[in-house]
Order: sequence, then structure tokens, then C-alpha cells
Amino acid sequence: MKKTIVTLLICLIFTGLHAQNIFSPSKNIKVTFDINKKGQPTYQVFYKNKAVVLPSTMGLSIKDAEDLTHNFEVVNTENLSFSESWQPVLGEQSSILNTYNQTRIYLNQKETNNKLNIVFKIYDEGVAFRYEFPLDNTVNYFTVSNENTQFNLTNNHEAFWIPGDYDSQEYAYNKTKISDIDNSKIDLNNGVGLKSITSQYRVQSPLMLKSSDGLYINIFEAAVVNYPIMHLDVDVNNFQFTSNLVPNALGDKAYLRTPSVSPWRTLMVSDDARDIVSSKMILNLNEPNKIEDTSWIKPMKYIGIWWEMHVGLSTWDYAGSQNAQNAGTAFGEMIPSGKHGATTENTKKYIDFAAKYGFDGVLVEGWNTGWEDWYGKWKEDVFDFTTPYPDFDIEEISKYAKSKGVKMIMHNETSGSVANYERYLDRAFTLMQTYGYPAVKTGYVGKIIPRGEFHDGQTMVNHFNFVAQRAADFKIMINSHESVRPTGYHRTYPNYIAAEAARGNEFNAWSNGNPPDHETILPFTRLLGGPMDYTPGIFEIKMNTYDSTKTEQVHTTIAKQLALYVTMYSPLQMAADLPENYQKHLDAFQFIVDVPLDWQNSIYLEAEPGEYLTVVRKDKNTERWFLGAITNKDPRKTSISLDFLTTGKKYKATLYLDGKDADWKDNPKSYQIITKEVTSKSDLKLKLAPGGGAAISFELID
Amino acid sequence: MKKTIVTLLICLIFTGLHAQNIFSPSKNIKVTFDINKKGQPTYQVFYKNKAVVLPSTMGLSIKDAEDLTHNFEVVNTENLSFSESWQPVLGEQSSILNTYNQTRIYLNQKETNNKLNIVFKIYDEGVAFRYEFPLDNTVNYFTVSNENTQFNLTNNHEAFWIPGDYDSQEYAYNKTKISDIDNSKIDLNNGVGLKSITSQYRVQSPLMLKSSDGLYINIFEAAVVNYPIMHLDVDVNNFQFTSNLVPNALGDKAYLRTPSVSPWRTLMVSDDARDIVSSKMILNLNEPNKIEDTSWIKPMKYIGIWWEMHVGLSTWDYAGSQNAQNAGTAFGEMIPSGKHGATTENTKKYIDFAAKYGFDGVLVEGWNTGWEDWYGKWKEDVFDFTTPYPDFDIEEISKYAKSKGVKMIMHNETSGSVANYERYLDRAFTLMQTYGYPAVKTGYVGKIIPRGEFHDGQTMVNHFNFVAQRAADFKIMINSHESVRPTGYHRTYPNYIAAEAARGNEFNAWSNGNPPDHETILPFTRLLGGPMDYTPGIFEIKMNTYDSTKTEQVHTTIAKQLALYVTMYSPLQMAADLPENYQKHLDAFQFIVDVPLDWQNSIYLEAEPGEYLTVVRKDKNTERWFLGAITNKDPRKTSISLDFLTTGKKYKATLYLDGKDADWKDNPKSYQIITKEVTSKSDLKLKLAPGGGAAISFELID
Repeated sequence: MKKTIVTLLICLIFTGLHAQNIFSPSKNIKVTFDINKKGQPTYQVFYKNKAVVLPSTMGLSIKDAEDLTHNFEVVNTENLSFSESWQPVLGEQSSILNTYNQTRIYLNQKETNNKLNIVFKIYDEGVAFRYEFPLDNTVNYFTVSNENTQFNLTNNHEAFWIPGDYDSQEYAYNKTKISDIDNSKIDLNNGVGLKSITSQYRVQSPLMLKSSDGLYINIFEAAVVNYPIMHLDVDVNNFQFTSNLVPNALGDKAYLRTPSVSPWRTLMVSDDARDIVSSKMILNLNEPNKIEDTSWIKPMKYIGIWWEMHVGLSTWDYAGSQNAQNAGTAFGEMIPSGKHGATTENTKKYIDFAAKYGFDGVLVEGWNTGWEDWYGKWKEDVFDFTTPYPDFDIEEISKYAKSKGVKMIMHNETSGSVANYERYLDRAFTLMQTYGYPAVKTGYVGKIIPRGEFHDGQTMVNHFNFVAQRAADFKIMINSHESVRPTGYHRTYPNYIAAEAARGNEFNAWSNGNPPDHETILPFTRLLGGPMDYTPGIFEIKMNTYDSTKTEQVHTTIAKQLALYVTMYSPLQMAADLPENYQKHLDAFQFIVDVPLDWQNSIYLEAEPGEYLTVVRKDKNTERWFLGAITNKDPRKTSISLDFLTTGKKYKATLYLDGKDADWKDNPKSYQIITKEVTSKSDLKLKLAPGGGAAISFELID
Repeated sequence: MKKTIVTLLICLIFTGLHAQNIFSPSKNIKVTFDINKKGQPTYQVFYKNKAVVLPSTMGLSIKDAEDLTHNFEVVNTENLSFSESWQPVLGEQSSILNTYNQTRIYLNQKETNNKLNIVFKIYDEGVAFRYEFPLDNTVNYFTVSNENTQFNLTNNHEAFWIPGDYDSQEYAYNKTKISDIDNSKIDLNNGVGLKSITSQYRVQSPLMLKSSDGLYINIFEAAVVNYPIMHLDVDVNNFQFTSNLVPNALGDKAYLRTPSVSPWRTLMVSDDARDIVSSKMILNLNEPNKIEDTSWIKPMKYIGIWWEMHVGLSTWDYAGSQNAQNAGTAFGEMIPSGKHGATTENTKKYIDFAAKYGFDGVLVEGWNTGWEDWYGKWKEDVFDFTTPYPDFDIEEISKYAKSKGVKMIMHNETSGSVANYERYLDRAFTLMQTYGYPAVKTGYVGKIIPRGEFHDGQTMVNHFNFVAQRAADFKIMINSHESVRPTGYHRTYPNYIAAEAARGNEFNAWSNGNPPDHETILPFTRLLGGPMDYTPGIFEIKMNTYDSTKTEQVHTTIAKQLALYVTMYSPLQMAADLPENYQKHLDAFQFIVDVPLDWQNSIYLEAEPGEYLTVVRKDKNTERWFLGAITNKDPRKTSISLDFLTTGKKYKATLYLDGKDADWKDNPKSYQIITKEVTSKSDLKLKLAPGGGAAISFELID
């Protein structure tokens, strides 16, 4: 357990019974809480005295009982100012400050005498509140049929949104006015395999917004535990957003008992976008670390047998058809295709490469039986998570990896059959322990079983959290793909080191891909909840390298791929391309070799959602700094002051830059590498190509 | 694997393309298969040339695809006569004959070219058929939305029925004409905690019927694997029954892929009720044993800490309230009630008693945490199946039991949270293995989680079968309560030695109970599918013994309780009453001590559903015979010829009989024990009291 220093704990004051004003420590943010004439709890948010959220109701509808939405009176109010700093096991910074003003409002529902508390925590960069269901309620077990939390905004802001899909977040962002949010107008031929969009006017959170007068607003949630994910229904005429909880097969949203709490509903607001992108509010709103011994939780830079399947060089399944019946595999002998990726021989090749360049791990997908029949069948018993294909000698591989000082990363694709995965979970983890795999990448491609559940429902939220907990029993780290997007639970279970849960780099290999602005938006949305396994590092950018008929490509330059290792914080980072492609560009590859994954400090120098992002980070263990800068489709010039460097010290800066003629579309592989001696007084002028980036390492010169 | 002798395998003949007559080996039963003008497959059944089933359609509705109900043509027909004998691991007889005539009809659906096979197996005591979905269908993965199998009977027979409840079979039987089947007329104040009856005119199978001209008819199913349970919709005016498959939350019935098969639909018919009650057809229709080493599968006679909770002497939960919140247990320290049954001390008392009287096992319920909060809450994470209450020292108990030569029987109540049980299953079984528990009683009281599933749906059928398979990995035997009623799967997984899955003896302790005819009907219904853990042996029959305000009682005499050990075949039998109650009647108790649970042979001497049953069985390992005779509420006189005994040998018969004045209501505890010397030429005259019985042991006199 990391030590936690509480520096300030004052002002436990019981105050009056009516409209409450609550301020952020800086006083920039004010929240006004009140009960309206119907007895509905309402709140408003102001930033520097400007309204950000107009009066918005709060509350929940309860199945077969009185709704907790109306007829309330304030019984008492309790205020608290709090500040602590705590040390994450892995993170963007070694110490995190958690400073807020808190107000707990005790509500009583007249007639029913049901109790409901609403707790506000006001941070300098935003507002969080949640519902508390006290023990002494008349209804001890209850079913939430709806949550009625409103976010009534003041104007027709610009929004970065993806559709409210209960099964997937793997969309590129739409940038429109709130009034133009409309799921019926999206091009759905976007490579997303399973879509569950049930409303035209529903978006997902984190929802990033920008007002015409320069306010950055972000609506999200934190600490989603035993509760479904919140999407947002949009009133496009009145700029109002209302919580939409993901249902189960019966239409129920959440099964709760008292005492319990809802997740935190968050609204960040600032006139500086960097306040949003650097915020640790979501993490702070989660419970502290529950794992006592965290010595085994370590960052992992890895390569893997994975991209070669995406580009069509090899197959996940042994038989190559992904159809058990065609392959004759389900009912007879398996016929190898000759293109199977996860062979002992190929794995050793990757292990050798990992060992040579100091990677921590090697991921191998398609190593186990089941891939013949895994996709799109809604089949319950696809995988047993323990049986290797005949050409994958797990014992030999794990011995070989150990002899080379490389760790293997397990892969557990579930094809959405969660019921089956849970049956095998202990066996899967035991196998990992037996063969020394410290981490597992899990996958949830396909419709969920138990049938009727969605990826984002309470059952699945519980599943993902459960897997992290169970993995901790075995000292195994989790990297979940096609999972619920994280909401900071990795503070509580730091072995849950990464998730995909957004549109990753892989979409560039076989769909219309990720537009060049994609990675400038993710830090304002998906990454607020936790690290993403985005799988950057693609050097062979155009897919026609593999197949001349293909037109797909990564929407990037090589320099931008390098910059992503800094701009997209994750303690688990893949170098996703093939070893042979790195061999062709070992000079550029050196940045991936050098970049650390765990940081003492991070400074967001420049940030504008959809436009650009520049961040510099200091290695947790050395005096090295690493800078990443990216742009969208537009070229960009900027000048970076290096005043973050230690005064009076000299550094060697190695700049991995776009080539002069670089362009994500026409010339993505053009790059240049320059070294310079710099100090804290230096400025660096950077020129980013269209869809380009820059990556810089700073090393102390003794 | 028991050896299987196939004695006859002839007549693989391809015959014509239209109406087919198929006969039982005895020729008593004839089935006529045809395709009607709509291309619907139909069948009729005749018994001794008398119509039993009028033309009835067959087929299935498929979701999002052409229904497999119509437009069929016969492509080919294949006939086969088959006979084998096989040896069950445990059973009513040591060798079972499996003799039938089989016809497989290959159907093609015009236009779609979908294939469907219908396979008939005609036994001397009945008809079985099932659907086969061949590999080469156009639709490989498909969802059954309905099964349209009809059983159109000829007349308004008398029926022994319970309502078509998707979650429970724990009903007393109604005996009415088919025309009077009506779920709205049942008294539902019957102690059944969870009822899911969605149609007024739906009953469960096994459905026992009797025609006015003396035919006994039974509609059931066999080998329900990866398919929901079949209930029967009733057309009360036309005496037609149609399959009603139990749905999931989405209304879907079964998710299948080709090649696969449906369960067998069975209709037994005879003019002698004994042919039904002694039939091994259901077992024969299941796949052979899949467990290689069966040496660990053994019968178990057991006592347990269980009835004392039912009669109110002690509690399952440590805190005594079955409410975690009232007890303060969920959020603080557990406060013992002082009435907790599963204490180390109490368990040792039971172990001592078991050891003294040669019982194999001791069941202890309420040993583990979770019971504070288990009932009726639809709560997912009630039990972890591994954490004992503080007053249950599992290590000491298991050592003590071992020292006394007694085995402990585990108890895993799930409260219906199957999702959670599957997560902990390996850990639960590992605990059993660690502490030497060879068997587990599982429980499923409450609404199922995954939410929206019913006890009788495909998901739960798969769960129960999965638990048996997983248990076999650990060499553990399963006794499932509140489970799907068995359909012979214990042939395939003989470690699935018993189930409750009907209204057991416990209902007598706290509800209107089981009427005296109940145990005369069960062998014609529930027991056809497999052994039942009925928990007989209650000597202290009236509940006012424990609480003078109580009026509940077991609807029995003591002699009938003894007879049940013979009439209700099970390799797992409880002596359900308290040790102190047996101490008061050690002479009668001797029958329970003596009666074996595994048999060389069983002869049903007399049988009439709802009236009486007399069966005699020979011990598998000795020359001893045991006879059980029971009656309904009416007294009964009968004379039994002992010609089953070995000719020329002398036997000592010990008769446990109703006392002269015995009566289930007014004088249930009156019994007499008589010993006699008998031979195969003897007749025994028996007089059964109202609601009474007789139990007899025959021992060879050297």
C-alpha cells in the first residue's frame, strides 16, 4: 500500500437546510444546490461567475417502489474541505494531489421517508456528485429503472461525440454542434462489428465540449462499480443531456442494496484545455488501492504476434478459416492452414527480438483452440483458455522466454462469452502462473453471453472489475479489450493496468480507420478514465505493402507514431508493428526502445481537442524527459520552451521529427532524427507535418 | 467404463419414401410416420392396434429463418434393430437391457433445402423420437424459437399433473381429467417460494395419464442436453398437448449449431402400470457413461444437520435472522444467535451417530457465510462457498469424521446466483477435495442470476450438466436441489447421483405438505428421469412435537417412511430425522440401517399411480432382499407371493408394519415389527394403514 498523506481536513460544519453554494478551492467553480417546488433536487454550475450548467434535476427511478426523484426535503448538510496526496503504483506522476470541497446533503422523501444523500466534491477543475443510498432506507434491496441526472448546458457548444452504443465505443469522434448530434447521420460502415445503438439522440461519455466563448467542458463519470455505464440522452434543441443507464435483458438498470452509492457524475470545466487533459479528478474519485503487495505490478513494453494477423500475413486460428465446420475441426482432426501465426517457431523469433531490444513482454494471440469458431456466432463454449494449438508448445516457449529474460503476455479472447470465461478463470490464471505469464490481454469481441446483456451493463461492469480482483489473487495484470471504458478503477486495482475500450490503431489496418485528429481527442475523452492499449508504433503505414489491392493505411506519419508513446499515457505499451519493419528503421525505433512507461511528472504544454497536443514527461527513475507532440490533419508549427528541464543542467535532445516533405497521406514514412544540446533556457521550434508529430528524448549530459 | 454387450444389430435397410410403420420388438406398439399435404411431418401411435396418439405434427420454429415445420419431403429412411445390455455404475439393477427398433427419416425442406432428420426408437414400453440437425444445413447456427411437437391424445384421460412452472416442480400432483386441467384453480398457498406460471393451460412432464379403458400413458423426454426443458401446452377441449420450451430473457428457446440433436420426446404406453414404473427407457436414451474411472462413485446413506432447521430447532445462518442488515453482519461483526445448527460440536454429534450406525455420510447445511442475506433478494454475491462461519471448524471436523470412518457431504446453496457459483466452482470443489468431501448437495432457491433465466431454460440445463462434469474432474458426486428434473443424464455422468427437483419431504415440515398419494405418483413421474433425494425417514411425524402451535405433519406412518427407502430408488438416501428421534425407535431404525442403496435386481410387484406401489429389490452384493409397499390415504390389504426368493432357500423376513390402529393422521407412529421364516413358496399378507406402508427385509438363513 502506497502511503497517503492527508494534509488538510477541516470544516465539518452542519449548515442550513436550503439552497447551498459550494465552491472549488480556487473559488473559480460554484455549484448551487436546491430543492425545487416539486421537491426535486437540482444543481447549477458556474465557472468564474458564468453559468455552465443551468438548473438540472437529479434523482433515480426505482422499480416497483416510489421514485427517488421528487418530494424531497433537506434534512441536513455537512461540509468538508479535504486535501491529500497519494502515490499511484504506476502513473503519469509519482504523486497525485487530491484536493476538494465536499458537501453532503441529507434528503428525506416526504411520505415514504426514504433517504437519499447527494454528495458533491468540487475540485478546481470540475464538479463531481453521486447518490448515496443509506442503510436505514425502507427499501433495502431495490432496482434502479432509470437515473434522471440532467446536465442542462447553456448553449449550443461544439461537441466531440460518439454514438451511445451499448456494446462498443470503437468509433471515430464526430465534431458537431450539440444541435447536430444525430446518430442516424453517422457513416456506420466503419469496421465496428457489433453495434447496439437504440436512440438517434444518444452519445457516450466522456463527452468533450467547447463553448463559443472558450470554455472547455467535459461530462463523464468516475468509479463505476456495481452499476451500469452512463450514456447521455441529448435534447438537441435545448442542449440538455440526461443520464441513460445501460439496461440488461429485462430493461432493468442496476440491482442495488443499501448502503451503497452510485458512481460519481463529473463535469469538468476550464478556460484552459490543459486543465481537463491533465486532470486526475477521475482517479481521485476512486477508492484507494486495495492490493497490499504491489511489487509485481510493473510497466510492460511489449511486442506481439498480432499485427501480422491484422495485415493478413497470418491467422489467429490454426485452420485458417475461422469456421470450425468448413475446417472440419469441430468434429474431426484440425487441418493446419500453414498460415497460423502463433507457432512455437514464430514466437521464439519475437522473443529474440524482444530480448535484443529490451522489451518486457511478448503477446501471442491465437495460441489456443477455439479460433476456428469464435466470431459472430454467439456461441457459449468457444474457448477453454487452457488448450494450446498443437503447434504452440507453451512449456518450451515459456522456458525459452525465461532464458532470454522476456515475459510472455497471455491472451484470453472470450468472444463475448463471459459466462464461459468466468467458469474457466481460475484455470486460465493458474496456467499463467504455471508458465510465468505476468499479464493477460482479454478480449470481448461479440454479443455478450449471458444473452441479453450488453458490454456496458451492470453485469459486465461487475465482470471486468471481478476479473481484475481475481487476477490480483494470482498476481496477474489485466489489459482488457472491448471492455467497458475505464473510470479510474485502476486506482483501486492497479493491476488493471490498461484497457482498449475505444477505437484503437488496429482499425487503420482494415477499415476507414482513425482520422488524424483521433489521437488529439482521446486524451480529452477515453484517456481521462485510464490508460489505453492503443498499440502505436506502426512504421509500415500503408496496407498496400502487404496486399497491393488494399487502400487502408494508418492516418499518421512515423514521427507521430513515436509521439503517441508520450501523448497516450499507458504503463502497458505495445510496439505494434512487425519486427522486420522495425529492422528497416532502427534509428526511429530507438525512441520506442528508450521511452519509459512510468513517470515522475507530466506537463501538458499545449492542448486543443481535435487539434493538437504536446506533453512532456519525466521518467520516474532517471533524469530523462520525453516529449510528444501531435497534430491533426493540419500541419503545425510551434515553439516549446524547455523550462521544465532542471536549471543549470545540460541535456542531449534527440528529436524524431517529420521529414520536411512528410504527410500522413502522401509521404507518411518521411522522418528525420536530429540531436541537439539544450538547457532549460532553450526553445525548440517544431514543425509537424499534416497528420504528423514529434517525439523528443532529453538525456542529461554528465 | 462398464462393458456393454451389443447382442443384436441387424436390418440396416433403406426403405420407401412415404408413410412408415415402425413396430416395437414385441409388435404391441406401432408408430406411423407420414408427411401431410402441407409437408408437415406427422406421427401416430397405436398400442395393441388401438390408437393412442392421433396424427400429431412435429417440427421446430427457427428465429430469423424458415421454420422447420412444413414443406418437407422424405429423402430416405433407415431402419435398425438394436439390443444391448449395459451395466450402470449404480442402479436399480446391475444390468440394463436396451432393445428397440429404430427408424431414421431423412427430410428435405423444399425451397430452402434445409435438412432435418427424425429418429424414432420404439421400445416395448414406449416410443421415443428426436430431431437431428445435420451438419450440411444451410443454417449452421440457429435459434429455436418454438418446438411444435404435438401429442394428440384420443380421449379425456385422467391426468396426474403439476402446473407448467418455469422455475419449480415442487408441487403436489393434481389428479383430474385432461379437460379439467387449469392452473388458475390450484391452491397456490402451498409453500412453493418462487412460481413462474405464465399460462393457465400448461403442465409439466413427466405427465402420467390413464385412459378409461385401462391404458397407462406417460409423456416425458430424455437426454435433455444443451436444450431447455419441455413443458406441455394443453388444449383441454381436444386433449392435445404441444411442446412448450422454457424461454430465456429474450424469449429465445435454444441456441444450437449443426450437427446437433434435440432431446428425445417420449411416450410410454402399456395396459400394465408396472411397465411404466419399471421402465429404463429414459436411461437407455441417454449417452453411455463418459467417466472412465468410476471407482469413486458410491452409494451414500447419510444423516445431516438439516431437518433441525426445518422444524425450527436451529438456524442456517449464524446470526439467526437471515437478514444481514438487521444482524449488522454485512457491515460489522456477526452476532451469533446461539441457535446456529452447523457448529463444530453439533457436527461431531452427528458424526458420532453416523459412525455408530454405519452411515456413509453427514451433510451439514448452513456451515458457510452468506446465509444472513441469502433468501429472496436476487442478490448475486451471496456465498463464496469456501468461508466457514467462525463456529464451524472445517479442518477439525474433517479430521474427526475421517477418524470415525464417516464422510462429510458438502452443501453449496447458490440462492439461484448461478453466475456467482460458476465463478467459485473450482474453489468450492478444491475445498471439498482438500477436506475429503466426496459429495455435494447443491441448492438453487430463488430467482436465477443471470437475470431473466429460468430454472428450466437451456442456460440452466447446461449449468446443471456442467456442474456434474466439472465435479467429475474432482471425483465429486452431485445431488442437486431446486434443479431441472433429471432426464437420465446420470447414465452419462453417473456422479450426478441424485436430484431433488420435485416436492420433497421437507414440505411436510412447514407447508400444507405432501398428500399421502404423493409418493405413489412420483415413481410414475419424477423418478422416471433419475434418483430423487426425497429425504425420507421422519419418525417424529407431527410438528407440534417441536412447537405446540404447529399443525403441520408428514402425511405418513412410520412404516411408510421405512418403505420409501425401497419404493423411491436412490443411491443417495438420507435418514432425515434427528438422531434423538431415531434413538427413541431404534428397532424401526434398524431397517434404515440395513437397507442398501445399490441393487442387483428390482421387481415392481404392484403399481397403480396415485394408489399404491409394491417393489422388491435384491442387494447388489448380498443375498438380501428388501421390499417396500406403500398406499395412499386409503388402507390397503394385499398378499405378496415371495416367488422372487431363491428356490429351496430359507430366509428370515423382518416385517416393519403399520400398527393395527395406525393412521397417517390420527396415529402415525404406531408400528409393529415381526420376524418370520419364509421361502419362495410363501405368501405374505400385508395390511397397510391409511397413508401407511410396509418395509420388509429378507435375510438368508444359513
